[in-house]
Amino acid sequence: MAVGKGIATDLRPVGGVSLAVGSAGIKTAGKTDLALIELAAGSQAAAVFTRNKFCAAPVHIARDHLGTAVASPRMLLINTGNANAGTGQQGHADALACCQTLAKAAGVPVEAVLPFSTGVIGEYLPMARIELALPDLAAQRGQADWYQVANAILTTDTRPKGHSVVVHLGDQEITVTGISKGSGMICPNMATMLAFVCTDAKLDAKDLQTLLQDTNDQSFNRITVDGDTSTNDACVLAATGASGVHLQPGTKDWSRFRAAVQEVMLELALQVVRDGEGATKVVALSVHHAATSQEALDVAYTIAHSPLFKTALSASDANWGRILAAIGRAPIEDLILDKVSIHLEDVPLVAGGERHPKYREEQGAAIFAQERFTIHIDLDRGDATETVWTTDLSHEYVSINADYRT
Amino acid sequence: MAVGKGIATDLRPVGGVSLAVGSAGIKTAGKTDLALIELAAGSQAAAVFTRNKFCAAPVHIARDHLGTAVASPRMLLINTGNANAGTGQQGHADALACCQTLAKAAGVPVEAVLPFSTGVIGEYLPMARIELALPDLAAQRGQADWYQVANAILTTDTRPKGHSVVVHLGDQEITVTGISKGSGMICPNMATMLAFVCTDAKLDAKDLQTLLQDTNDQSFNRITVDGDTSTNDACVLAATGASGVHLQPGTKDWSRFRAAVQEVMLELALQVVRDGEGATKVVALSVHHAATSQEALDVAYTIAHSPLFKTALSASDANWGRILAAIGRAPIEDLILDKVSIHLEDVPLVAGGERHPKYREEQGAAIFAQERFTIHIDLDRGDATETVWTTDLSHEYVSINADYRT
Repeated sequence: MAVGKGIATDLRPVGGVSLAVGSAGIKTAGKTDLALIELAAGSQAAAVFTRNKFCAAPVHIARDHLGTAVASPRMLLINTGNANAGTGQQGHADALACCQTLAKAAGVPVEAVLPFSTGVIGEYLPMARIELALPDLAAQRGQADWYQVANAILTTDTRPKGHSVVVHLGDQEITVTGISKGSGMICPNMATMLAFVCTDAKLDAKDLQTLLQDTNDQSFNRITVDGDTSTNDACVLAATGASGVHLQPGTKDWSRFRAAVQEVMLELALQVVRDGEGATKVVALSVHHAATSQEALDVAYTIAHSPLFKTALSASDANWGRILAAIGRAPIEDLILDKVSIHLEDVPLVAGGERHPKYREEQGAAIFAQERFTIHIDLDRGDATETVWTTDLSHEYVSINADYRT
Repeated sequence: MAVGKGIATDLRPVGGVSLAVGSAGIKTAGKTDLALIELAAGSQAAAVFTRNKFCAAPVHIARDHLGTAVASPRMLLINTGNANAGTGQQGHADALACCQTLAKAAGVPVEAVLPFSTGVIGEYLPMARIELALPDLAAQRGQADWYQVANAILTTDTRPKGHSVVVHLGDQEITVTGISKGSGMICPNMATMLAFVCTDAKLDAKDLQTLLQDTNDQSFNRITVDGDTSTNDACVLAATGASGVHLQPGTKDWSRFRAAVQEVMLELALQVVRDGEGATKVVALSVHHAATSQEALDVAYTIAHSPLFKTALSASDANWGRILAAIGRAPIEDLILDKVSIHLEDVPLVAGGERHPKYREEQGAAIFAQERFTIHIDLDRGDATETVWTTDLSHEYVSINADYRT
């Protein structure tokens, strides 16, 4: 099950980016399970990775290769079907061998290849088949489109995820296109949220890194399906410069470009939430008037991770007692519950530590029955606001995660 | 569903404690929903309450009455069916009125009455019926036994919970008897874990408070069903002194007595876990060689609250990737996953960041199929050890918490 529609926008090609997909029999034979995103020489790329200390071999190698001064990233190599996580020394050697084989076939230094894996944890990559498939993949560069790549990187996702925005700056045009995958923070034995966003703008390396971190913070770092993080999570932002438009912070053009990147990142993140395992609805938790951003996030995530809130959401039950109880156990020592007010969209639900006198159950039931809505929590403590997006906890979530072996 | 058997031990009377049960029609008409635990004059009582800032009116009043120098506690008044939480000023006035009516009927100061409520959140107590029933309840003192009281305080629990230990000290005898209730940290719209433990030993007030906090830390503070805390949680330890045996810390008798209290507290806590909503099994998570106690608890609770771990548990799937991933996101900055080892009972499961070479899936499946077992996690960082008990996340949990209105 998933919430709402699939990909809504056309995925626009990005100048300086060549794509390829291939098949190495990692998943079912004949299914595409390899993807390649090639960046033209002179491109810049930045990446953020899972904060989980149990991180997979390709995460270590991608981080190392990004950090080296030997070569700038040219090849983003993604395999699905196997996360190469929990595979020890052998997994590390395998991930490196993938990079070496592709580098040789494509004629780039090994450090120019960043590997990404998603799929089953704890099994070794089928290296013989992958080594055979990689030269073919390199030869296919330019033969695939974003939609094929978006499909090639899926695991338990029910649909491909992508979004494009074109920014017009005078008579010039910048494209931002991204794809993502992921439907639980970790799927049944499967790992990972991956996202790749490319633009043909030209950016300085430090600006690109800051832009990625800031927009990631307001998108992928604001969604939660089950609170579990993955071994392989990664998000890459690459700028090829093929448009010839050099953008720098502080300008009006930068603001418009930044907004486009933020839109793509948030849309990709929300597509992951909407495809959350067993999700029947997506709710935005907006915490207002917190003393600090962290405090707002603490409250939002405590609600978002409460199994009691999530099951009530699944049941379309506007159970305000569970929301208040979750707020009450958020890690804020001096919170005064009587000052907290809660609105469902624009309907007042709670004030002064109890149900709002004008609130009627039918109002809450009508809003909770929607596929998407916002719960506003006002703490009356300061000026910080944060929003977090989450899903419900349904029977299907338990089925996907408990019954997958039966 | 619930794990294992119900009450295993006889619940022994405690000298200086008189019990009563009654019915005020708060739950279904005719069902017992009031209970009274009377402590003889000169008794000491200590209590710990929920840390949730959304706490119910009776919690505020019980805490106030305990803190006053006007009177020591004589009457523990418990109602079930209604938590009197999220009820604002009216709820506070109602809880106080209950205390006043009982105090008058029993001839004690109002401050000698501690009120406890459990049940639905957000509805006012049916005061007219309760006020009528309280004088009857007072008149019934001494007419009930612990088993009846254990039954009278239940909400969604599937069975009563209690445990007794008798300690022989030379030719003297001390009894420790306790009862508890609770089956989710918050049930569907229902609140609360409650526990009442009484002994006929004579204790100094400060020793009693320390004993309660210490044993509570190693019992009720080490269990988790769903990570949600309640509006009404309370645990009371009372010492009547009726045995004439005055116990003080530092003696051999104290150690034996302390062990008995700890046994009763832990057994009551485990009975709550075993009766967890939808629980089909109970697992102990023992974290060894942590740098600090807090670190051990952080790791244990991160696993215990992981929906992916809990669904794997429900499916009897020894999914080591999910355990490692949960450890990897515990809040320990410098944790090295390659040093972590995991045993299922005495079977090695993980070492060096991957599956132990000798581990076979049949071993894990056999252990995970049991109703109770222990997972040992060794962090190789220090000398601290902590154990936390939790349950699985089953379809029935979702049913109980999502479908209760349908």
